[in-house]
Amino acid sequence: MHYPVIIRLIAFLLLFLAGGMILPLLVSIYYGDASTKAFFYSILIISLASLFLILLTRKDRDNHLNHKDGALIVTIGWIMAALAGTLPYLLSGVIPDFSNAYFESISGFTTTGSSILNQIEGMPHGILLWRSMTQWMGGMGIIVLSIAILPYLGIGGMQLYKAEIPSPIVDKLKPRISETAKVLWKIYLFFTLFEAALLIFAGMTVFDAFCHAFSTMPTGGFSTKNASLAHYDSALMDGITIVFMLIAGINFSLHYKLIKGNIKNVGKDLELKLFLVIVLVFTLIITLNIYGQIYTSFSRALRDALFQVTSLITTTGFISADYEKWPALSQMILLLCMFLGGMAGSTGGGIKIIRIMLLVKHGYNEIFHVIHPHAVTVVKLGKTVVPQDVLRSIWGFFILYILLFFIASLLMAFIGLDLVSAFSAVASCLGNIGPGLGLVGPVSNFHDVPVAGKWILVFCMLLGRLEIYTVIITLTPEFWRK
Amino acid sequence: MHYPVIIRLIAFLLLFLAGGMILPLLVSIYYGDASTKAFFYSILIISLASLFLILLTRKDRDNHLNHKDGALIVTIGWIMAALAGTLPYLLSGVIPDFSNAYFESISGFTTTGSSILNQIEGMPHGILLWRSMTQWMGGMGIIVLSIAILPYLGIGGMQLYKAEIPSPIVDKLKPRISETAKVLWKIYLFFTLFEAALLIFAGMTVFDAFCHAFSTMPTGGFSTKNASLAHYDSALMDGITIVFMLIAGINFSLHYKLIKGNIKNVGKDLELKLFLVIVLVFTLIITLNIYGQIYTSFSRALRDALFQVTSLITTTGFISADYEKWPALSQMILLLCMFLGGMAGSTGGGIKIIRIMLLVKHGYNEIFHVIHPHAVTVVKLGKTVVPQDVLRSIWGFFILYILLFFIASLLMAFIGLDLVSAFSAVASCLGNIGPGLGLVGPVSNFHDVPVAGKWILVFCMLLGRLEIYTVIITLTPEFWRK
Repeated sequence: MHYPVIIRLIAFLLLFLAGGMILPLLVSIYYGDASTKAFFYSILIISLASLFLILLTRKDRDNHLNHKDGALIVTIGWIMAALAGTLPYLLSGVIPDFSNAYFESISGFTTTGSSILNQIEGMPHGILLWRSMTQWMGGMGIIVLSIAILPYLGIGGMQLYKAEIPSPIVDKLKPRISETAKVLWKIYLFFTLFEAALLIFAGMTVFDAFCHAFSTMPTGGFSTKNASLAHYDSALMDGITIVFMLIAGINFSLHYKLIKGNIKNVGKDLELKLFLVIVLVFTLIITLNIYGQIYTSFSRALRDALFQVTSLITTTGFISADYEKWPALSQMILLLCMFLGGMAGSTGGGIKIIRIMLLVKHGYNEIFHVIHPHAVTVVKLGKTVVPQDVLRSIWGFFILYILLFFIASLLMAFIGLDLVSAFSAVASCLGNIGPGLGLVGPVSNFHDVPVAGKWILVFCMLLGRLEIYTVIITLTPEFWRK
Repeated sequence: MHYPVIIRLIAFLLLFLAGGMILPLLVSIYYGDASTKAFFYSILIISLASLFLILLTRKDRDNHLNHKDGALIVTIGWIMAALAGTLPYLLSGVIPDFSNAYFESISGFTTTGSSILNQIEGMPHGILLWRSMTQWMGGMGIIVLSIAILPYLGIGGMQLYKAEIPSPIVDKLKPRISETAKVLWKIYLFFTLFEAALLIFAGMTVFDAFCHAFSTMPTGGFSTKNASLAHYDSALMDGITIVFMLIAGINFSLHYKLIKGNIKNVGKDLELKLFLVIVLVFTLIITLNIYGQIYTSFSRALRDALFQVTSLITTTGFISADYEKWPALSQMILLLCMFLGGMAGSTGGGIKIIRIMLLVKHGYNEIFHVIHPHAVTVVKLGKTVVPQDVLRSIWGFFILYILLFFIASLLMAFIGLDLVSAFSAVASCLGNIGPGLGLVGPVSNFHDVPVAGKWILVFCMLLGRLEIYTVIITLTPEFWRK
C-alpha cells in the first residue's frame, strides 16, 4: 500500500471539492441567503487541510499504484468527500445533527437521493444547490471511475467491462485514461446544460432548473421541492425529466459512440435494447393496472407510470405520483425496478441490466444442459462468448448483493422498522435509488429512521455505489496482509 | 421418449395409490363416517383405470429408460397422483370444487401443507387420514427420488448428489437402487411409527397421533386441528414434533449412516452442522426479540421460537403460535427460513442449506479473487473441491428459483393479492412450506385466494417439490426435439 500517494490523491480530491463549493457560495451571496458564511468557512477549512496534506506528501507523486491502492483511494475518497460535504449543512445550521448531515451528504455523493429533510422549500439557495451538486459530482465520479479508471486498475465487478473489450464498452473511447475522462466529462456537462435549458424553457426558474439537471444526470433524485417533480404537475417537465433520466441510465460510452456517428453499433447493443424493452413493458403493465383503478385519465396514468418506472429503474428517485397508493402489482414492479438498475457504465445503481441478462441466460443454459448433459454450453453476449471468470464474478456480485440486502434488512428490523419499510429502505439505499415504501415511501423521508439505522443505510449506499467489491475487499484481513 | 413404458410406470404408481386408500377406507368404516363410499369408489375407479393401462402396455416392460423419460415419469406421475388424490375429496363432497380439491391434493403430495379448508375439525376421519397420507407418500417419494433414483438418471439439480459421490451422500448406501429405496423406506417408516408412539404417550388420540406423524416426517404440515399444534398447547407434544421435524429436515443418508454406527462420519457433515447452527442462532434471536415484547415467559418464548424456526426451515409448516403478531425482525427471520429449507436429501423443500452454503462460499471466493486476481480459487466442501459444473448447476437453480418466485408473485399481485400475501404465498408454495403471511398467514388459509391464483400456486408447489429443473425441462421445446 502506498499511503502517501493515497493521501495525496484524496487531498487533491478534497481540494477539487472545495473548488466546487465556490458556486454555491456565489449563489448564496447573490440571493443574500443564510448560508454564505457556512460556505466560506467550509471552503477555507477543506482547502487548508488538503493543501497541508498535499505539501506533506509532495515527494510522493511518482509512485505507481496497484489495484489495492485503487480500491482504498476510491473507498476512502468517497467517505472523505461525504465528510467534507457535511460542512455546509453543519455550519449553516440547516442540519445541525452530524448523523443526519452525513446521511444527507453521502446520499448526495452516492447519487442515492434519500433525504432526512422534512422541509426542503425555503432552505437557503446555496444549500439547495450544494445538495444537487454533490449528486452531480458523485455521478460524474462514477462514470469516470467505472468506464475510464477501474477497468485499468482491474478492480472488482469490472471484469465485466474488461471482458467486453473488444465489444461494447471501452473499445472506441480514447486510448489514454485522462482523455477518456475528459470526453466523458464533456458529454455529461453537455447533457446537464441541455436539460437545464429545456427545463427553463418549460417554465422552471433558472435556479430550480439547474438544481434538477444537476440531480437528473447522475440519477440522483434530490429536488428543490418537497413534492419532487409532482410539485410542478407539468407534462412538459415530466417529459423532459423522463428523457434525461433515460439518457442517464444508458451506458455513457454509447453516448460517445452516438456522438461520433456510430449509430449502427449503438443500435446493436443488446443491453440497451433490453433496457428499453423493460421500461416499455413495465410502463404498459402499470398503466393498465392503475388506469380505471386509480386514474380516470389514460394519458395521465401512462405519464405517471412511465415517469415512475424510469425514475426507479434508472435509480434516480424523482417522484411524480404517490405510488404507494397504486395496486400491489404496480408496487411490485417498481420494487423489481429498484433491483434491476440501469445499464452498466451509466450513472445508475442497482444490479444492472447486463448482469441480470447474463444470469438469466446462464439459468436457461443450465436447463439446456440438463436436457443435453454432454453438450458443451457457453453464455454469449451477441456473438461474443462470455468467459467463465466473468460469469463467476457476476455470480459473486449477485450473491453478495442479496446477502448484504438480507443482513442489512435484518439489522433495520432489529432497530425497529416494520417489514416493508426495512426491506425497501435497504433496497433503496443499496441500489442508490432514494425513496422506498412504508416509512421511507414516496411522500415520506428518512428523518424518522433511528440513528443506528441511518448509519447502516450510509454503509449500504457506499457499498451499492462502488458495486460492493471495491468496499468489501478493504474490510477483509486478506486485503491488509502483506 | 418411451411412452408405453412411461404410461405403464405411472399406472403402477396409481395402483399403488389406490392400495394406499384402503387404510382410510377401513378407518372410515371403523368410525362409521361419511367418507366410506367415497373411498370405495375412488379405489374402484383408480384401480380399474390403472389396470386397464397396465394391460394395454404389457408388452413394453423391458425398455431401457433415459433421463428424459425419467423427468416425464416424475412430473406426470406427481400430477396424476394429485389428480387421483382428489377423488376422495370430490366424491365425499368434503371439497366439492375441483380447483380446491386439486390444490388440497397436490399440497399434500408435494408435502407443502397449504390448505383451502376453513374447518378441519369434524371432518370424516377417513378424509383427515387421507390428507396426512398424501403427504406421507409424497415425502417418501421425494426421498427415494432424490437419493436413490434421480442421481442415476442424471436428472437436473442432482449433479449436486452425483458430485458428492464419493463424499457425503450416495456412497455408503446399497449398490442397487431397489435396495437403497428399501432401506430408506424402512428408516422413514421407523421414524413415523416412533413419533406416533411418542405422541400417543404424550396424550394424543391414536388417530391424531398417526395423522400428525404422517405429516411430520415428510415435512408436510397438515394437521387434524384448525389451530394446528397450538390446539394442544402441550410442551411435550411440541417438543416431540420439534425433534421429528429436525429429523425429517436432515439428509436421510445420514440417518442410514447413523444406524450403521458410522457416527464419526455424521459428525463431520458440514451441511448438518450448519443446519443445526442456523436453527440455534435463529431461535435465539427470535426468542430475545419476542421475550418481553410479546411473551412474559422466557421458556414459552424459547419454545415457540424453536418450534416456528424448525417448522419453517424444515418447510413443515406446523403452527404453535401466531407469528404474524411477532415483531418485524422475527418475521423476517422466519421468511428467510422459508427460502433456506432443510438439508439436501431430506424431505424438506426450499433452496436447501448446502446450496446456500456453496453460493456464499463462492461469493467469498470472488472477494478473495478480486484481492488476488492471479490466484486460482476453488470452492471446497470439507476437503473435496466442488467441480465447476456443480457450481454452475447450483447457480442455475438459484436464479431460476428467484426468477420463478418473482414471476409467480407478479401474477399473484395481478390477480389481486396484496404485496406481503403475494410474496409470501409464492415463497411458501415454491418452498413447499404451507403457511405464509397476510392473507395466507398462520391463522388463515388459502381458501380465499382466487381460482387462478390457486392454479399458479399448484404449479409453484410442483416446481418446488421436484427442484425446478425436472419440471421446467419438460416445458421447453428443446426437450421434445428428436
